[in-house]
Amino acid sequence: MDPRVREHAETLVDWSARIDPGDDVVLSVGEGAHDLAVAVAEALGEREANLLATYDSGEVSRAYISSYEGTFEDDPAFELALYERADSVLSLGGSRNVSATADVPGDRRQAYSRSRQGIREARLDTDWVKTVHPTRALAQRAGMAYEAYQDFVYGAVLRDWESLAEEMSQLKDILDAGSEVRLRKDADGTDLTMSIAGRTAINSAASVAYDSHNLPSGEVFTAPEATEGVVHFDVPMTVQGRTVRDVRLEFEDGAVIDWAAGAGEDAITEVIETDDGARRVGELGIGMNRGIDRPTDSILFDEKMAGTVHLALGRAYSDCLPDGESGNESTVHVDLLTDMRASGTELLVDDEVVQRDGVFRWEDR
Amino acid sequence: MDPRVREHAETLVDWSARIDPGDDVVLSVGEGAHDLAVAVAEALGEREANLLATYDSGEVSRAYISSYEGTFEDDPAFELALYERADSVLSLGGSRNVSATADVPGDRRQAYSRSRQGIREARLDTDWVKTVHPTRALAQRAGMAYEAYQDFVYGAVLRDWESLAEEMSQLKDILDAGSEVRLRKDADGTDLTMSIAGRTAINSAASVAYDSHNLPSGEVFTAPEATEGVVHFDVPMTVQGRTVRDVRLEFEDGAVIDWAAGAGEDAITEVIETDDGARRVGELGIGMNRGIDRPTDSILFDEKMAGTVHLALGRAYSDCLPDGESGNESTVHVDLLTDMRASGTELLVDDEVVQRDGVFRWEDR
Repeated sequence: MDPRVREHAETLVDWSARIDPGDDVVLSVGEGAHDLAVAVAEALGEREANLLATYDSGEVSRAYISSYEGTFEDDPAFELALYERADSVLSLGGSRNVSATADVPGDRRQAYSRSRQGIREARLDTDWVKTVHPTRALAQRAGMAYEAYQDFVYGAVLRDWESLAEEMSQLKDILDAGSEVRLRKDADGTDLTMSIAGRTAINSAASVAYDSHNLPSGEVFTAPEATEGVVHFDVPMTVQGRTVRDVRLEFEDGAVIDWAAGAGEDAITEVIETDDGARRVGELGIGMNRGIDRPTDSILFDEKMAGTVHLALGRAYSDCLPDGESGNESTVHVDLLTDMRASGTELLVDDEVVQRDGVFRWEDR
Repeated sequence: MDPRVREHAETLVDWSARIDPGDDVVLSVGEGAHDLAVAVAEALGEREANLLATYDSGEVSRAYISSYEGTFEDDPAFELALYERADSVLSLGGSRNVSATADVPGDRRQAYSRSRQGIREARLDTDWVKTVHPTRALAQRAGMAYEAYQDFVYGAVLRDWESLAEEMSQLKDILDAGSEVRLRKDADGTDLTMSIAGRTAINSAASVAYDSHNLPSGEVFTAPEATEGVVHFDVPMTVQGRTVRDVRLEFEDGAVIDWAAGAGEDAITEVIETDDGARRVGELGIGMNRGIDRPTDSILFDEKMAGTVHLALGRAYSDCLPDGESGNESTVHVDLLTDMRASGTELLVDDEVVQRDGVFRWEDR
C-alpha cells in the first residue's frame, strides 16, 4: 500500500476526527475508496474504536431512488438509530464515475433528500469528517493523469495542520474584529463590499476541534451580509451539473440585481431564482491551503486553494452568526471562486490591506 | 447487466426475504458483490422498502481485528441499535480473495466474534438471507472458469423454488413421521443409523417463509441423535482452512470412537476434540438442489447438492428439536458430505428405502 494512504488515514482519525477509544465510528466507504477504508480500519483498530462500515455507491443510490415510485418514508428508524448513537461519521469519497447519478430526475433526488432530514441532522451532530480517496474518475474530472492526481490529493491532505491552523487564526482574528470586507480586482472591475460586523469567522483547520469537517480544509470563512457592488468569478466550476465560467454578479442592498456568465448562465439563473436567500451571499471564504495549486472541479479542494476567495449564494453557516440570530436560510449554497493572484488585486478589512495579489501581509513576497 | 443478476435480486427480495413496503432492510455488500447490490437496490426501491447498505470486506476486517490489541467492546450500541430495528438483513457474499483474512490470528478472530454475540442474535432475529454473487475468486476456489462458475451459480439460484419446496415437503413428511434413518453404501462400507424420533425436519426452500435463510438452498435437514455405525465422506471439503478428503467416522452410543482421513486428518481431530458435542452428530441434511451438480468448496452450495447427504459434527439447529429440549450445543458445526449416487447406496427411514443410488423413490430413474 502507498504509505501516503496510511498517513491519510492517520491524519483523518487523529487530527481531523479526534477518535478516542470506545468511540462508535461509522465509516462510509465510497465505491472507489476501498484502500483508504482498509487503512482507516487499521487506524481505528489501533485506537480501539468501534467500527461499522457502510457502502456509499452512486450506482446503488441511482438504482434505489429511480425505482422507488411512492413517497419516501421519513427517516427510517433503523438508520436514524444508528446515527443517533454514533460518535463519528467518517465519509470516504472516491467515486468511480462522478456522473453515476446523472440521470436520476431532480425531483426524485430532492424527495429522497428531504425524507432524510432527521438522519442528516443526526450525522451532523456527530464528529463527522468528509475526505476523499483519489480515484481515476476524480483524476479525469480534474483533467489530470492518475498519478499526478494522487500527488495533488496527498499534497492537499498531508499538511502541517497545526502550523496552518496557527496561521489561519491570524486571519480569523482580523475578520472577527472587522466590520467590512472589500474585494478589489483591477483586471476585471471587481469591487465588492460586505458587512461582517458581529459575525464570527471559522478557522477551518480540517479538524472537529476547530469546528471544521473537511479533509483537506484550509480556509477561513464567515457569513457576511449587506453585499454591495460588482464581483467577477474567473475559476471554472460545475454548478447544477453544468460548467460555469466567468460569472459576474452585481449586488444592491445585499441582493443580486444583475448577473451574466461566459458559460452556464442558465445554471446561475436557476440558482438565483431558487428563493430569496439565493440572491444573497451566505458565505465569504478565503482559501489558505498551499497544497492546492489548481482548481480540480471539486469544491472540497477548490474552495481551499491558497490565493482564491469564494462567495456562496445561499445558506449561511449558523456558527458564524451571533447567538440566536438566524442568517441566510436558503435551501441552496453555491460557491463561486475568484482568483486573487492577479496584479492589482486586494482583500481589505476596514480599509486595511490583508492580502494583495494573492499574498497575505504576513507572507514573504 | 447480465439479466440473471436482476433475476437473482428479485428471487432474493421476493421469494427468499419476502420484503414488504416499509421494511427496514440492511444490505450487506461483499467486496465483489457490487453488481448484485445495484440490482437488489433496484428491487428494494420498486417494493418501497427502506435501504441501508453496509460494506462487508475481508480486508477491512483483517486490518481492524489485527490492529486492535485490547479487549473488544461487547455489542457496540450504535450497531446493535441498527440490527435491533431492522426487519431484514440481506447478505451478499462475493469475495475477491477467499484468503483475505488467512493471517488473522484465530484467537483475535474468536475474541471479536464473541464480543458480537448480541449483534449476531439481533441479526438472526430478522428475516435474514445469505446469498452470493459470483466472483473470480470464488470461481478459482471452485476450480472453474469464471463464465462457467457464473452459469453454475445461476443454475443453483434461479430454480423453480415453489415446485422444489413441494417436492421437499414429501421428504420432510417422511422424516417427521419416522424414527430411524439408516445410510448404506456398499462401495465404502458405510452403514450408519440415527434416531430422529420426535425431531422436526426443516424444508429448506430458500425462503424465510420456510425458515430457510440461504439462497441457494434446497435441502431437508433435521437433528438426529444416538448415531451408531460407520460412515465414509467422499466429497472433498475445506475444514478449519485445510483440505479434508475421505473421512471415515465410527460411532458408538452416539459419539465418535474412531476416525481417519485420506487428507486433513489433523483438522478432523481438532474438530472432534473441541468439546463433547463435537463428537456427536448435530445435523443430518439431504441435498435436493439439482442445479448444483458438483462440489465447489463452498458449503452454501455443496450441502444442497442433489444426490448427496451431509452430517454435521456439533451444534444442532434448535427448530428441529421438541419445544424446550436442548440438543447438541457444541461451539462448532462442521459439515461433511457423502455422495449417494454410487450403485448399492441407500437412504432408509424405518427400514423403507427413501432414496437408492441417489434417486428418490418418487423420481423417474
